[in-house]
Amino acid sequence: MERNLKLTIAYDGTAYHGFQRQANALSVQQVLEERLERLFNHPLRIAGAGRTDAGVHAYGQVITFSTTGSIPTERIPIAAKGVLPPDIVVVAAEEVDAEYHARFTAISKIYLYRLYVGKYADPFLRNYAWQIATQPDVKAMNEALQEIVGTHDFSSFRAAGGAPVNPVRTIFSASCRQEGSLIEFSFWGSGFLYHMVRNLAGTLVDVGFGRLTREGFAAILAGKDRSLAGITAPPQGLYLKQVFYE
Amino acid sequence: MERNLKLTIAYDGTAYHGFQRQANALSVQQVLEERLERLFNHPLRIAGAGRTDAGVHAYGQVITFSTTGSIPTERIPIAAKGVLPPDIVVVAAEEVDAEYHARFTAISKIYLYRLYVGKYADPFLRNYAWQIATQPDVKAMNEALQEIVGTHDFSSFRAAGGAPVNPVRTIFSASCRQEGSLIEFSFWGSGFLYHMVRNLAGTLVDVGFGRLTREGFAAILAGKDRSLAGITAPPQGLYLKQVFYE
Repeated sequence: MERNLKLTIAYDGTAYHGFQRQANALSVQQVLEERLERLFNHPLRIAGAGRTDAGVHAYGQVITFSTTGSIPTERIPIAAKGVLPPDIVVVAAEEVDAEYHARFTAISKIYLYRLYVGKYADPFLRNYAWQIATQPDVKAMNEALQEIVGTHDFSSFRAAGGAPVNPVRTIFSASCRQEGSLIEFSFWGSGFLYHMVRNLAGTLVDVGFGRLTREGFAAILAGKDRSLAGITAPPQGLYLKQVFYE
Repeated sequence: MERNLKLTIAYDGTAYHGFQRQANALSVQQVLEERLERLFNHPLRIAGAGRTDAGVHAYGQVITFSTTGSIPTERIPIAAKGVLPPDIVVVAAEEVDAEYHARFTAISKIYLYRLYVGKYADPFLRNYAWQIATQPDVKAMNEALQEIVGTHDFSSFRAAGGAPVNPVRTIFSASCRQEGSLIEFSFWGSGFLYHMVRNLAGTLVDVGFGRLTREGFAAILAGKDRSLAGITAPPQGLYLKQVFYE
């Protein structure tokens, strides 16, 4: 009997060239497909909710695939531990309707972006946050961030040279908070353009350091031009936190 | 002019075969010596306060060495960043008296040991904590831990087959606390035998899971026999936190 399965995956993206399968570099998708095939006893092709880049992490990536394998759904997380490397973990498994697709039926996602504030690099955070040497104004960043809430054309924050997709996205909420030396941006939205979160983070840091006002940030969004915004923040601060479905 | 320098070093020990230089495996000491030589322009031989094992980490390892190099002391941390790999960081540098020696003049140290409680492995903590699947009794572990405070013969917690050194050490304080899914043991003592903290952690987990009482733990300490105690907890949960001098 064929089942359509939904697996929730956490991974440390440090060692991988992104989620999506590539010809000449190791991806999370390739490792998942090759290792999970051992549990299901047939070739697998998985769909992933978010195409995270090299060095980007996930707490709650979602994959779907159909299988004729006989392993009980509830045993998959523990069985997967036996075949997957320790930097990729299956945290949940469930059987879903045949129409359910990790990417196409997702209705919203949460991404996190983390900054580490420290004069010296922290050797334990080098792969898990963007290090900045001095304290930014978190309140100012959180206020500017409210400008993106709602439905907007995010052309100013899309990757330069990206594929021509509709640049309109809806952000349901966005926040910035600090705990100790870690600052965390959280973005909950209907979808995200390629590099959108990293471009937002790079521009918000300009606000945090007083190089840009809230009004200036709003003008960049309204300008719909990538050349107006700040740098693309490095990948290691980005986490796909959660994916929501109907 | 010759200076005796004291550097405080943080490192992620994941990629190294311990602190101490070895013939056929890469150590933190070897990397520090080879890379810092570029700053001081002469061969260096450093002394380290604690000989951490493979996979063990440090927030505050201390090294001392004498140099005729001309780089100003206050510039060392930032200059070291340019020559060291990102998993080894110089967090402080100061000039000290000629008699000052990282290991022989240390009067006490703090080690931390971290457990992660989770049904599934956390891919971000696999190199930074010992994962246990179910919640142990933290209060019971903290109470048993008080048995080691004071001056004791720690033969029950020394490495089997270790070098014949005086097994008496003084523990000034020890505690166990939990924050979220992380449990942290802290040990402040005059010195520690080889594997002592990891053997204590392995035995305390037996207390946490009800396999051993506080009285049983005290009897193991009093028995002065390694075969009485629990397993050696894995290295990745151990951190050299701080070293104190006169």
